[in-house]
Amino acid sequence: MDLLHGIATTRAIRRYTEEPVTDEQLATVLFAASRAPSGSNRQPFRFVVLRDGPRARQAKAIIGEAARTMWSTKRRRDGYGHGSGRVADSPKARTAVVLDRFVDRFEEIPVVILPCAIRYRPPNPYEGASVYPAVQNLLLAARAIGLGGTLTTWQAPVEPELRSALDIPDEVFIAGTVTLGHPEGSHGPVRRRPLAELVYEQRWGRSPAWALDPPGTRHTTAGPPTAPGATGP
Amino acid sequence: MDLLHGIATTRAIRRYTEEPVTDEQLATVLFAASRAPSGSNRQPFRFVVLRDGPRARQAKAIIGEAARTMWSTKRRRDGYGHGSGRVADSPKARTAVVLDRFVDRFEEIPVVILPCAIRYRPPNPYEGASVYPAVQNLLLAARAIGLGGTLTTWQAPVEPELRSALDIPDEVFIAGTVTLGHPEGSHGPVRRRPLAELVYEQRWGRSPAWALDPPGTRHTTAGPPTAPGATGP
Repeated sequence: MDLLHGIATTRAIRRYTEEPVTDEQLATVLFAASRAPSGSNRQPFRFVVLRDGPRARQAKAIIGEAARTMWSTKRRRDGYGHGSGRVADSPKARTAVVLDRFVDRFEEIPVVILPCAIRYRPPNPYEGASVYPAVQNLLLAARAIGLGGTLTTWQAPVEPELRSALDIPDEVFIAGTVTLGHPEGSHGPVRRRPLAELVYEQRWGRSPAWALDPPGTRHTTAGPPTAPGATGP
Repeated sequence: MDLLHGIATTRAIRRYTEEPVTDEQLATVLFAASRAPSGSNRQPFRFVVLRDGPRARQAKAIIGEAARTMWSTKRRRDGYGHGSGRVADSPKARTAVVLDRFVDRFEEIPVVILPCAIRYRPPNPYEGASVYPAVQNLLLAARAIGLGGTLTTWQAPVEPELRSALDIPDEVFIAGTVTLGHPEGSHGPVRRRPLAELVYEQRWGRSPAWALDPPGTRHTTAGPPTAPGATGP
């Protein structure tokens, strides 16, 4: 798998087959995760893997419950059931179908990983710099070996229950919920806004002439259907 | 460049040759950055590129000044000039030499990129999930095309001056300072703690038997020389 190709074609995978993820595959993606940089190379990142066993099942059920609540709120608030959301096969309707299934069968997802970071100062927006690069490495490595996954923050509303179920100390930042498995769909080119809208030179808002997507790149608008002004995950 | 190999051998590059980075190279690494996932695919990430020109030079000087202050504080506090730091060629002494040069010649670094994220809710630790994966993609893509860089937070103490110099709106999160150029040294296997110290299964602190580094992996301890209890970037 070519590096640049892998980066350009790693999709968020939310539908998985029943095929289990092996220990070797887990070791591969987590080794990749741990190669990521962190501030002063402190390596504060830790990864809690949940597959089977009583504690893993309990933690998955806690997060699954939260996921269903969060998605049903978002589904309503962002109007996934309205407008083009009522047209079968519209992007909006398809997203809703995938997410319905994602949360309904959350407990059956082969692997759930909680990427964490041991804090050494109070919570702040920069601390993600020492854990989210590791998550990206993990998702890219999954792509390289035929797996797929996505990063959510479904665990956020149920942190206290999760800490208690998994013995996660209070000073640990639980940065997200990564799901992982064999894709039922497939990876492929991801769509984003045109590069010129995302890249500036010299000052904010000034797009340089060289900020061009490769020929044939397909674009998409950003965010959920009612994006501007909407709040939520 | 193989994806898994690239991930395992992307080092933080802090010394650059004078060779300029071309427009095409910038477009390649920023296209890769923009392929990253973000919450609800909102794509809040923006990248402000600083090379030459009056505003870019001014911004680089502002960050350079902050970098020198921050590193000199850290150098003292973390004891880089003491113990093995006095032994030429010790890891500690070598780190100090590289960082001395990194900050002293900051203004000469070929490319400085400020990865930003447009906020739609108050600052919080999760917001990095929508910008640091893009930074990691950028650094990996740089590796793929023979460049190198690193992520710092040197801009943090001088945010107001930077916003004013570059017209960056108040609601924008300036997530870091990425430096980029042609490496004077070289990429190669990075060193981390043993995987078993970073990966848990079922519960916090329980390392699974399968959490093994590939044969031949070399390890390192985490953090700056006086890591435990020290604070800083």
